Amino acid sequence: MAEGSLAGFASLEELLEEYVPADKLQQAKRVIYGLNVGEPVGELQLDAGVQERAKVMDFDLRSALFRAAPEQMRPPRVVRIGLIQNKIVLPTTAPFAAQAKAIRDRVGQMLDTAGQAGVKVVCLQEAWHMPFAFCTREKVWCEFAESAETGESVAFCQAAARRWSMVVVCPILERDCAHNDTVWNTAVVIGHNGNIIGKHRKNHIPRVGDFNESTYYMEGNTGHPVFETAFGKIAVNICYGRHHPMNWQAFGMNGAELVFNPAATVGDLSEPLWPVEARNAAIANSYFVAGINRVGTESFPREFTSGDGKPAHKDFGHFYGSSYVAAPDGSRGPSLARHRDGLMVADLDLNLCRQTKDKWGFQMTARYDMYADFFAKFVKPDFKPQVIRDPAL
Amino acid sequence: MAEGSLAGFASLEELLEEYVPADKLQQAKRVIYGLNVGEPVGELQLDAGVQERAKVMDFDLRSALFRAAPEQMRPPRVVRIGLIQNKIVLPTTAPFAAQAKAIRDRVGQMLDTAGQAGVKVVCLQEAWHMPFAFCTREKVWCEFAESAETGESVAFCQAAARRWSMVVVCPILERDCAHNDTVWNTAVVIGHNGNIIGKHRKNHIPRVGDFNESTYYMEGNTGHPVFETAFGKIAVNICYGRHHPMNWQAFGMNGAELVFNPAATVGDLSEPLWPVEARNAAIANSYFVAGINRVGTESFPREFTSGDGKPAHKDFGHFYGSSYVAAPDGSRGPSLARHRDGLMVADLDLNLCRQTKDKWGFQMTARYDMYADFFAKFVKPDFKPQVIRDPAL
Repeated sequence: MAEGSLAGFASLEELLEEYVPADKLQQAKRVIYGLNVGEPVGELQLDAGVQERAKVMDFDLRSALFRAAPEQMRPPRVVRIGLIQNKIVLPTTAPFAAQAKAIRDRVGQMLDTAGQAGVKVVCLQEAWHMPFAFCTREKVWCEFAESAETGESVAFCQAAARRWSMVVVCPILERDCAHNDTVWNTAVVIGHNGNIIGKHRKNHIPRVGDFNESTYYMEGNTGHPVFETAFGKIAVNICYGRHHPMNWQAFGMNGAELVFNPAATVGDLSEPLWPVEARNAAIANSYFVAGINRVGTESFPREFTSGDGKPAHKDFGHFYGSSYVAAPDGSRGPSLARHRDGLMVADLDLNLCRQTKDKWGFQMTARYDMYADFFAKFVKPDFKPQVIRDPAL
Repeated sequence: MAEGSLAGFASLEELLEEYVPADKLQQAKRVIYGLNVGEPVGELQLDAGVQERAKVMDFDLRSALFRAAPEQMRPPRVVRIGLIQNKIVLPTTAPFAAQAKAIRDRVGQMLDTAGQAGVKVVCLQEAWHMPFAFCTREKVWCEFAESAETGESVAFCQAAARRWSMVVVCPILERDCAHNDTVWNTAVVIGHNGNIIGKHRKNHIPRVGDFNESTYYMEGNTGHPVFETAFGKIAVNICYGRHHPMNWQAFGMNGAELVFNPAATVGDLSEPLWPVEARNAAIANSYFVAGINRVGTESFPREFTSGDGKPAHKDFGHFYGSSYVAAPDGSRGPSLARHRDGLMVADLDLNLCRQTKDKWGFQMTARYDMYADFFAKFVKPDFKPQVIRDPAL
């Protein structure tokens, strides 16, 4: 289905709310969003100034409230998080520095709104500071890569972190100068004091459709770090890593309570997978997942091909936004828009993670030792699959 | 949300079709069911006799058609599968033998309809031959357990297999007489000639809500077998195993192209998870998944408690049916009803599995060696999680 016929389709929520009567709507939402588990996902009361900024600056603003049961031995641990999705601002033919500055200016508006809204941990989309130009296979776009320690986009996020005492997850195209100018796809985690806590490099690199990223950078070498911030233990599963259940699981095994999935993915390829994978990861690992997808359609100066037998073309397809938060109990919040920049603000009571572990017992029943044995066998060249053949064949 | 208010809610499909206009419906279905990936999931033309049987015998009958692209080097490999969900027939106070016979008679109607419809591989629900009595903690229900080789329910399925030259997956409560009368939760795989190809025992046993199964049987000792049948390579992930991503993955690593998930699960606990997990497993492992859930509300002679602080009660809650098929490309078929017995008939072109592997490359990019190392470390008592702490804390 071409994006053209979907241009008027803002989100599934809006469509259902327009047509389905209120009493039936509750039943539909229950199945689609998991609203019978625990308390229904609510909305936050954001102050009028925040709402006014979103209106004036023309970006989508939505919210979600995830509750946990009261405990006797622990106070609630509510953290307010923010998800920011953004289009590029200037055409890809503009001078690179001008493109980068225009994106920073735009994202700065939403970062400051997040700070104003009381957000304590915010995450931007994958390679937010540049067009997603890897489809072109042209190496000139590597000029956008920057140091994870001293890069301009990172410094920009450090300033926002200091301004609002807010943890900022800043996914960039990284230039690793200390290792021979190697390029990586990296998320820099910036503490609420503006200090760099650490970085994580994308573990799984796609070779699908226009996602020609493996021409630019290799699989990450940073393992599955969990960053212990002032507001909780977080991890970052960058884009294509969301298709890999073990990747999600390893972040959980290292203790993550909230995993961001900054992404850049297009409608024709992955849109039906988008509501499934983050939510399944939240369920299977008893943690919160926040998926952030790029938004907008990006065109490039020269034609390129996708290896799909279709004619060469200049655009990547539509990045469909639709950023959302999924909870360990199976519930999820609303999506940001498919066509607009946006800021999602969500309150999460992190106590829901351990409560869900205690309720469902997925960790206790996981039989990790059995899988450790199986994997050790599987990776050997002489692995024989366990197949029982019908002797009648 | 109590089942009472949902009694009129047959399925999400019916609700959407009633209220959402046709052009918008397509957009909603695209997001909910993945209908833009490949060809839309279609319906089969089942012959009038089959439809008449479903009407007369009062069970839900639905279908799905999953296509794959034509290949030059391989013919299509279309297999017609069947999923059967059933209520118990007599009250749980009736004599056990009468209860079992009444269920067999009822399931036999649907098995024969499946055969008449040309189904080549059919799967029944978990412990289909008995009430799901484990909630009671009473050991008297172990009388329903039977030999996986010579049990009455197995023999009944072998006869159906021979009658229709149809592979039958028969999930039972197993009595392992050769090992000191041990009880297991087991799926017996019966070949199209009526021979027993092998069996698989449930790998992960729940300790959640009324699912008190761990009192009756232990974690399975049969690994992750794939059964090579006349109609494809299949595996069985029994019930709670669907919450374990590695379990799904191990069946895929052993070569499964179709994994059945025979289950017995109730609305208040798991209904929002049900549309997510099977579908995610199909996507992540590039195979088809067919989820079959028990249907109906079962009451028991004596009150029991759920460990949830609520008063003792006699019923397990509502098993919500909703059996469906999910495809490797992210699409899915419709659900069977929430309140009725049902037969789903689906044509799957198994070529879609390898086509999806080639397209998305999840296997190639999985980095199994990294996870084998990580798991080996994780299972050691001195495992230290990879945590990077903000030095400012």
